[in-house]
Amino acid sequence: MSDDLGPLVDRIVNAGVDTDLENVAIEKAMLIDELEDLEFDQWARLLEALPIEERLSQWQLISDDVQAEVLVEMRAEARLSIIDTLATDNLEQIFSLLSPEDLIELADSLPDHLIDLALQQMDQKQRLFFEHSNQFNENQIGRYADHNLLVLPQNAKVYDALRLLRRAIPECTDTLFLTDRAGRYAGTVPLQSTFGSPGHISLVELLDEQAEPLLAEMSLEESAEVLEKSEYVLLPIIDVKGMLIGRMTIKDGFQIMRESHEAENMARAGLSESEDLFSPILKSSMRRATWLGINLLTAFLASWAIGLFEATLQQVVALAVLMPIVASMGGIAGSQTLTLIIRGIALGQISRGNLMPLLIKELSVGCFNGFLWALAIGGVVAYWFSDFMIGLVIASAIAINIMAAAFSGVIIPVLLEKLKIDPALSGSVILTTVTDVVGFVTFLGLGTLFLI
Amino acid sequence: MSDDLGPLVDRIVNAGVDTDLENVAIEKAMLIDELEDLEFDQWARLLEALPIEERLSQWQLISDDVQAEVLVEMRAEARLSIIDTLATDNLEQIFSLLSPEDLIELADSLPDHLIDLALQQMDQKQRLFFEHSNQFNENQIGRYADHNLLVLPQNAKVYDALRLLRRAIPECTDTLFLTDRAGRYAGTVPLQSTFGSPGHISLVELLDEQAEPLLAEMSLEESAEVLEKSEYVLLPIIDVKGMLIGRMTIKDGFQIMRESHEAENMARAGLSESEDLFSPILKSSMRRATWLGINLLTAFLASWAIGLFEATLQQVVALAVLMPIVASMGGIAGSQTLTLIIRGIALGQISRGNLMPLLIKELSVGCFNGFLWALAIGGVVAYWFSDFMIGLVIASAIAINIMAAAFSGVIIPVLLEKLKIDPALSGSVILTTVTDVVGFVTFLGLGTLFLI
Repeated sequence: MSDDLGPLVDRIVNAGVDTDLENVAIEKAMLIDELEDLEFDQWARLLEALPIEERLSQWQLISDDVQAEVLVEMRAEARLSIIDTLATDNLEQIFSLLSPEDLIELADSLPDHLIDLALQQMDQKQRLFFEHSNQFNENQIGRYADHNLLVLPQNAKVYDALRLLRRAIPECTDTLFLTDRAGRYAGTVPLQSTFGSPGHISLVELLDEQAEPLLAEMSLEESAEVLEKSEYVLLPIIDVKGMLIGRMTIKDGFQIMRESHEAENMARAGLSESEDLFSPILKSSMRRATWLGINLLTAFLASWAIGLFEATLQQVVALAVLMPIVASMGGIAGSQTLTLIIRGIALGQISRGNLMPLLIKELSVGCFNGFLWALAIGGVVAYWFSDFMIGLVIASAIAINIMAAAFSGVIIPVLLEKLKIDPALSGSVILTTVTDVVGFVTFLGLGTLFLI
Repeated sequence: MSDDLGPLVDRIVNAGVDTDLENVAIEKAMLIDELEDLEFDQWARLLEALPIEERLSQWQLISDDVQAEVLVEMRAEARLSIIDTLATDNLEQIFSLLSPEDLIELADSLPDHLIDLALQQMDQKQRLFFEHSNQFNENQIGRYADHNLLVLPQNAKVYDALRLLRRAIPECTDTLFLTDRAGRYAGTVPLQSTFGSPGHISLVELLDEQAEPLLAEMSLEESAEVLEKSEYVLLPIIDVKGMLIGRMTIKDGFQIMRESHEAENMARAGLSESEDLFSPILKSSMRRATWLGINLLTAFLASWAIGLFEATLQQVVALAVLMPIVASMGGIAGSQTLTLIIRGIALGQISRGNLMPLLIKELSVGCFNGFLWALAIGGVVAYWFSDFMIGLVIASAIAINIMAAAFSGVIIPVLLEKLKIDPALSGSVILTTVTDVVGFVTFLGLGTLFLI
């Protein structure tokens, strides 16, 4: 859990509520003092946590030289809620403090004329950096290349390295890179190895031949994984021509993982990761409506399946009462299998070779739990409705639906993966549609056969 | 995504299927060659992906000196499936290669007699390390302290540091630590600052006064977060007495984040993170049965709610057909709000101060989508059943349920958080129970009032 910004949020929202004006003034002064100690990302999260009006008034309290950094740390939608209210000269001033790396972070959510404005504040070299990064799309590591590099020419010697190290070493650095005259990446030298070597030795002799650079086109997640396995805390990034265009540090990897985790959680509910706690109601409603619409279609499918048995339901109303139990048990059992298989797919562990044994194992588990819960639920229901036959019908439906769920839980994610659809996002919706329909049809179908 | 182990799994499972014995021998030899190139974690994931029989036969192919490392990388249940089959002398041999850090990783899942066996293979110092770490529980960073430290006494000078650096620097290191005579942590010196300083300067003068050590009792997630924000790639860990007991690197943090993400995904489906793809059927069934049982109770609650309206259902069977639509729309809308609030809680952004504005915003969004979908669904249903009144009833029920869902989506996670229950795990089960019951009662209640 992150540190709790709640108390600050409370005090900001409540400041000014006190009727004693002197108290208000004291509290406000104390608040401003405390806010000065916040770090960029704390400021960002605090602003995100505030309703729009308070957000804009707190924004004024951030000192000018920090505003740019805070904007960079904010999630896209909340960030725009502030940018949209700023006057051009204010924006110009903020943008004049942006590095090309920061501008790239913002670029996805900035309108074109603001990007142009920011570019005008940069010098030639910075503009070049930006344009270079901007060639790559939002899921390519080249876009986020950091330019804080220790670089030496290929023919440099250990004393060149030591001289370089005596000046500032960038954060998160345990290697330096060699390039040829054209700027092409020529290898990685661990800093460690330069300490123990005589000054006249060529750095080329200290190259780590195993070290592999990241390719600019690699996806963010893949890069993070390569870096995690590497023995270094940063890796060079090269483009198709082999030019050294920047570096990725393990801290970037950490942030990528965190954001991709957050995005996955949000996407499961049909939300965007940039969703603002206080986004405008109309905008937020319209976006959520799409996800509701998709799910409505699956609900209508379930209703249609039930509708097939209207005549039966009219005669045995207990079936209507019990329907949700059959559907729900199937959904839960299926989601357990689904989750296990999705993890296996993410780890690269599922293939044709183990699909059949997996299916057999999951069906066996389904068989066990199917019979266990069929017995339990059948017993309870037979007692509840004082009717043995209805107990038998729900027991059979539960057993069949839990086994169908186990089957679907294995097959659906594997199929989706083959179709290049992320099973972590859509697997669950499809699975519950299947378990709903199978559950309703089996239960009401058996009811039609045995209870009428 | 991790690299795909599927092709290897396929070949292992299919090796020996060919009828031509010569082909079988060639394929096996080629396989063994390729397997030799696997890294520890790839071996671990490959073994996890294999059915038990193949898993055990491939285990034999791993060279003795690597087996211990592969076991450490495996998830607990799959690891035990191998350990359980090994003879004592084989175990002794494997355990003799374990470092105290490795043994700690395994300890959670090893029976006591095997831990004793492993301890017997260690020297006095290693045993001490293990016992020291073992004081801390599985969610405290002290347990996982790594002992690969650069440490110097408090009175050391720059040339002592440089001499130390010329020997091996441990992976992932950009600081060294000073201790007093008793071994108490006395401060952090950035390696960088030693490069530029004259040899006779005291290291104490180069201390980074801002650097804060991790406390051994801190949770894994909290430590990872502190480290992520720190400017270094490792932090010292101290115990209550201020003794320097080890370090945590940013790579450890990376792994902690990855594992906690995986555990969260699994827990949402009521699974343990150690769950093996091929765990024994009975064991796996029993574990999953618990989660099914909990969810069964909520399903019975929904059934009970429906049962209150048996008489109505008997007369208007269309209500039974349409019930799932009302419940499903509420569940989906609620889970969108829930997801947004849970993210806010995780970021420390939700408090009394913004709860009311948030509730108002979510209710407004609920109002918008409630009316939008009430209109759409009401229209479709009125047409489907050629009955205006039933359209009106479902429209009202949808609007009410979506708004109740928005309310619950805000209130439930906040309440759970106050009760110290993780809303990310149980929030969704509770929410859908509420939206099911509210949906059924509203829909059937309105139906009773207006359709009979």
